[in-house]
Amino acid sequence: MNKMREWKHVFKLDPAKEISSDHLKGVCESGTDAIIVGGTDNITEDGIINLQERLDKVSTVPCILEVSSMEAITPGFDYYFIPMVLNSKEKKWMMDVHHQAIKEYKDFLHYPEMIFEGYCILNEDSKAFQYTNSYLPDIHDTIAYAYMAEHVFHLPIFYVEYSGMYGDPTLVKQVKNQLNETLLFYGGGIETPSQAKEMKQHADVIVVGNSIYTNYEQAIETVRAVKEN
Amino acid sequence: MNKMREWKHVFKLDPAKEISSDHLKGVCESGTDAIIVGGTDNITEDGIINLQERLDKVSTVPCILEVSSMEAITPGFDYYFIPMVLNSKEKKWMMDVHHQAIKEYKDFLHYPEMIFEGYCILNEDSKAFQYTNSYLPDIHDTIAYAYMAEHVFHLPIFYVEYSGMYGDPTLVKQVKNQLNETLLFYGGGIETPSQAKEMKQHADVIVVGNSIYTNYEQAIETVRAVKEN
Repeated sequence: MNKMREWKHVFKLDPAKEISSDHLKGVCESGTDAIIVGGTDNITEDGIINLQERLDKVSTVPCILEVSSMEAITPGFDYYFIPMVLNSKEKKWMMDVHHQAIKEYKDFLHYPEMIFEGYCILNEDSKAFQYTNSYLPDIHDTIAYAYMAEHVFHLPIFYVEYSGMYGDPTLVKQVKNQLNETLLFYGGGIETPSQAKEMKQHADVIVVGNSIYTNYEQAIETVRAVKEN
Repeated sequence: MNKMREWKHVFKLDPAKEISSDHLKGVCESGTDAIIVGGTDNITEDGIINLQERLDKVSTVPCILEVSSMEAITPGFDYYFIPMVLNSKEKKWMMDVHHQAIKEYKDFLHYPEMIFEGYCILNEDSKAFQYTNSYLPDIHDTIAYAYMAEHVFHLPIFYVEYSGMYGDPTLVKQVKNQLNETLLFYGGGIETPSQAKEMKQHADVIVVGNSIYTNYEQAIETVRAVKEN
């Protein structure tokens, strides 16, 4: 997983959304560093397996399942990203669902493949925010979460998630200033090459999701935009 | 802090309890590896400072403040142990009080001195258990917490705390079997050399507290009991 340190760009595919074979092939051959499979709504095991099988045939980059329910871990991915929502009001979404799954499945888990992410969800209107009963942290709260992700929990990833909304580059920059070891992932609302470039100035890795489905050509262009830097 | 890996025995002194100069000197010269200052009830800054000043004069081993309230961090200790209660029902005692303190004080904190402990409190009748609104985990829950302490949070210490009650050596053994990197501290109810020996068979470090105040001679004997192993 040390190669993750070289990543700049990741596409996130939603198993609940339709994508044509051409577009799927285009995503895989775009030059992106990895593909995350993940979403919040209507995620089914069938949907995941179906997308996984299609990716298997065309993808040459690492494929990652971002686990929204620990019970629905589908084998065969290169890595599993497991969000721990630091700004949830409930311990449940920070560590308890993970704890119960580990209690049940730990003998089947392979740790080098399991990557726990410190998540901070910053879009109040998003499903992920509401589902995990999160609160909106201010900039100082967010920076302190980043600090904890690195210094207290030693997590490999701190993930600033604006989920569908383009976020505040200044905040992303300030968060990045707190991190040395933990990688900063940014996701949310990146639709254009210039947005991709702007967020990549601060984040280690940018995640492009929705725009694959809404403006495919622009989404593909975000790869070149950040690789040129 | 790598020396902590060589520790076997630690005394825990309660700043709210009285100890004579002779006994304090005896504790310091007992051969123990470190002295933790910590407690739950009636902890005041004055009480901590007073004990710290007395320790300064006689102790040659590392002195550690176990922080029960992040607001009451007293400078001048060699290390600060900061409990995160994994089996609390509330995120507050797992990470939120820590988060708020980090938000406020992070520019004053020196990380190599701050040691975050994954705490698991197993005595329902103890003040610490009730204060942190904890639940009583079964053995599988406890093992899964140990697993998370090491594999998810990468904490330096997993602390099995029976707080005043002598615990279950079988449980401590099973927990130890889960840990490779994270050190296992055991605390609770150790009053005799044979109890010390029994728990030290499994735990990396045993913590002897109350019995300093109730049976001083026996407490001092626990050091030799575990060092002989």
